Amino acid sequence: MDAETAYGELVRRTREHSLLASCADLLAWDEETYMPAAGVAHRSDQLAWLTTELHAKATDPRILDLLEVVEGSALVRDPTSPEAINTREIRRAFDRETRIPVAVAEELARVTTLAQQEWVAARSNDDFARFRPWLERIVALRREEADAVGYVDEPYDALLDEYEPGATTRDISRLFNTIRTDLVPLVMAVTECRRQPLRHAFRALYPVEQQRVAMASVAAAIGFDFSAGRLDTSAHPFAIHLGPGDSRLTVRYDPWDVTEALFCVLHEGGHGLYDQGLDARQFGTPLGEAASQGLHESQARLWQNHVGRSLGFWRYVVPVLRGPCPSALEGLSSDDAYFAANAVARSTNRVSADELTYSLHVLVRFELERELVSGTLRASDVPEAWNALYARYLGVTPPNDAEGCLQDSHWAAGLIGYFPTYTLGDVYAAQFYAAAERAVGDLDTVMAHGEFGALREWLRDHVHRHGHSLSAPALVERATGAAPNVATLVAMLRAKYGALYGI
Amino acid sequence: MDAETAYGELVRRTREHSLLASCADLLAWDEETYMPAAGVAHRSDQLAWLTTELHAKATDPRILDLLEVVEGSALVRDPTSPEAINTREIRRAFDRETRIPVAVAEELARVTTLAQQEWVAARSNDDFARFRPWLERIVALRREEADAVGYVDEPYDALLDEYEPGATTRDISRLFNTIRTDLVPLVMAVTECRRQPLRHAFRALYPVEQQRVAMASVAAAIGFDFSAGRLDTSAHPFAIHLGPGDSRLTVRYDPWDVTEALFCVLHEGGHGLYDQGLDARQFGTPLGEAASQGLHESQARLWQNHVGRSLGFWRYVVPVLRGPCPSALEGLSSDDAYFAANAVARSTNRVSADELTYSLHVLVRFELERELVSGTLRASDVPEAWNALYARYLGVTPPNDAEGCLQDSHWAAGLIGYFPTYTLGDVYAAQFYAAAERAVGDLDTVMAHGEFGALREWLRDHVHRHGHSLSAPALVERATGAAPNVATLVAMLRAKYGALYGI
Repeated sequence: MDAETAYGELVRRTREHSLLASCADLLAWDEETYMPAAGVAHRSDQLAWLTTELHAKATDPRILDLLEVVEGSALVRDPTSPEAINTREIRRAFDRETRIPVAVAEELARVTTLAQQEWVAARSNDDFARFRPWLERIVALRREEADAVGYVDEPYDALLDEYEPGATTRDISRLFNTIRTDLVPLVMAVTECRRQPLRHAFRALYPVEQQRVAMASVAAAIGFDFSAGRLDTSAHPFAIHLGPGDSRLTVRYDPWDVTEALFCVLHEGGHGLYDQGLDARQFGTPLGEAASQGLHESQARLWQNHVGRSLGFWRYVVPVLRGPCPSALEGLSSDDAYFAANAVARSTNRVSADELTYSLHVLVRFELERELVSGTLRASDVPEAWNALYARYLGVTPPNDAEGCLQDSHWAAGLIGYFPTYTLGDVYAAQFYAAAERAVGDLDTVMAHGEFGALREWLRDHVHRHGHSLSAPALVERATGAAPNVATLVAMLRAKYGALYGI
Repeated sequence: MDAETAYGELVRRTREHSLLASCADLLAWDEETYMPAAGVAHRSDQLAWLTTELHAKATDPRILDLLEVVEGSALVRDPTSPEAINTREIRRAFDRETRIPVAVAEELARVTTLAQQEWVAARSNDDFARFRPWLERIVALRREEADAVGYVDEPYDALLDEYEPGATTRDISRLFNTIRTDLVPLVMAVTECRRQPLRHAFRALYPVEQQRVAMASVAAAIGFDFSAGRLDTSAHPFAIHLGPGDSRLTVRYDPWDVTEALFCVLHEGGHGLYDQGLDARQFGTPLGEAASQGLHESQARLWQNHVGRSLGFWRYVVPVLRGPCPSALEGLSSDDAYFAANAVARSTNRVSADELTYSLHVLVRFELERELVSGTLRASDVPEAWNALYARYLGVTPPNDAEGCLQDSHWAAGLIGYFPTYTLGDVYAAQFYAAAERAVGDLDTVMAHGEFGALREWLRDHVHRHGHSLSAPALVERATGAAPNVATLVAMLRAKYGALYGI
């Protein structure tokens, strides 16, 4: 077999795997949005079966034969060629997947499907005990996975690597040390200083049906293409790329605070723009996929914070919000709304957290996950440990587990090792935004007119369309001229919050 | 291998096939309800791939080996045992499926996915020419399928047999001869007699959002379980059973005529009750499936007509419809509404057709389909032939193709040979309703109080829970004491319409 033939078959098999995975993705989307409750057991059977099939396809020994033919050949001599990139990433995925026992993969699919329903019930009844056995089982399974995949320093490395290829627990830990050192005092200074935005500035009835209309306008304004996507409601917001022409977002609504859905739609919309900006012709191969979850999150966090918490954006969005609900933000100027949108609170909720404290919420989860996986923390001790870390980093204690350690769906979905990608996303986003502004000029002014095209196109050109042709750090460096570094983020936060709060 | 082992593997394989088919069903449901337009090409790839996989599974030579072990054994000696029934039906499906070339099956999946989008566009633009090449291709593919499957008299038999096992074109043709002979004069007499219901009795604005509320109440009242099902909107209404605990209905709404959605929800709700009444433990095997499409339609037609066009039902439903929209049916008594719900019109639309003319709409399609498949009618001649038959049987001519030969989605979905099952459904439904009333007493009185439980439970006991343990004709005979016969239907229609119109 010559290398061209082998490469052709390799790509065909990879695309076929992605096609089947996209079927599973629709089942997962439906489970979160429209599936009737009694359908959960059957859905779990479906997903377990698909996961087994996907695992079988991903670990077919034929792939190894094909890789061995291609890897030695002239076809991949240039490491920047499409063939070399796809081959390298297919090899990485194959090595990871072949190490995971099929029983573990199948059991994880089955358990997480049921666990997500149990999590919903546990959260709405504030009943951690109901969720505990599911968390235990998921941690045990993912630990088994980590042991099977292998790691240098600690098992958490193996999980992290799935979402952020090449990242290590040690690096993340170092990153969080800087953030903790720099941000905990800044948070304290800001929350204790005299100048403060209006309290409860956004607290007013805004009926959910009208919010849906407003959120659709905002998503469309930033460039989300509704002929190739949807916006729905789910308990926990997410974005999912089902395939070319089909990217879906979900948000949740608080009828008493329109900013809940607003920041959701910007966050998930950022994910959606990345998905819609990927090269559709490369769908199903690494060249058509996101480089890392951290990079994906950077797009979400960029739209949520750099755009959504800018003065320009608030000048644009206040009238938009008043469209479907004229009484919205009554008596609030754009400038006041902007300041209020940058209120800093030592709160207990991650999703609604402000830009400044967000990483501290992530830090809590990172520390707990790391300990759960290493076995130094038991699932039954999570509520206590959670509350202790919130007290330490944020100076607050959740009133109950529903608003504490049950607030996120990630663990129920099996996502352990994912949280740090939010903070990596913040780090990358700060660098991208600064670079975009250097390239296209002041963004605040144009955003005030509802013009988001220049920023979106810069991102499309420098991030989205490249897929996984570079690693996330290499892509950041090429787009911004600097390797990933936390300094840009910290400097930006210091400058912004210093100016806002006069410190 | 012993027979028990072989049977166990046979059932396991059949269930696995059903599990994968139920994934494809969700993709199909989503395509009709929520998928963004630009997702159609990818969805088509997904469904084509799944169809190929399903075909490969259904035709695995291993099934033949297993069947041969089981069929000769003591395990299936008693033809009424679960093992014998499942084995017999698995054999029937295997024989059919192995005869269809994989290229034909795959191409049909791909073409029908695209054709359904084209049909929507063609219908909304009244542009038959846009749909014509798709119809041609679908007819050609299904003709290829018929030739491959084989038939005694004519190719249409092979298609009919898929939906109504054992039915023949000759039988259906004979059935329609009786209907034509008895009903065409009755329709003429009724539509020309002096006593007539109020014209446009239901013509009034009833906002779609409020209709949704009313339709959900009606579906719940007849016993559709929303914890295990959904009600959505689609261009062409349908019911789909995704698996245990997950049955979905769709309807369409006319803001100026609430009976459009009302008859839809009863029709699709009848399908849904059948699906929810199947034995969930047997899901994925013939024992847990409908006996035939005709039997499935009988449940839909029973709720739509015998219930939905009864005086008792209208006494119940008028106040229910006024709940979400107090101005609904203003000045209309239940008795007037009942008469109006039984207005007979020589119209051009099948879905909204009354009980009496419905079979004539089906007759038109049956005659055209039969000729398309035998090759005596070209797709390009369909509009003209359609209009000629409407003139002959109903005395009307559709104003355009959108309201004529483009009105149904069936052909676009590849459903050729399906239409006659509606009339078989009418035949079976009349027999079931009469038998239920003999068993549980007068239904009109209890339905006036919104009590549908006795009827539903009789159907559950005598029809739903039996799955495919008997053929449709055998099941009808066991439940009603008589083999399927058109006489009950015709007598019922003569008596009802004679009384209503005084003829």
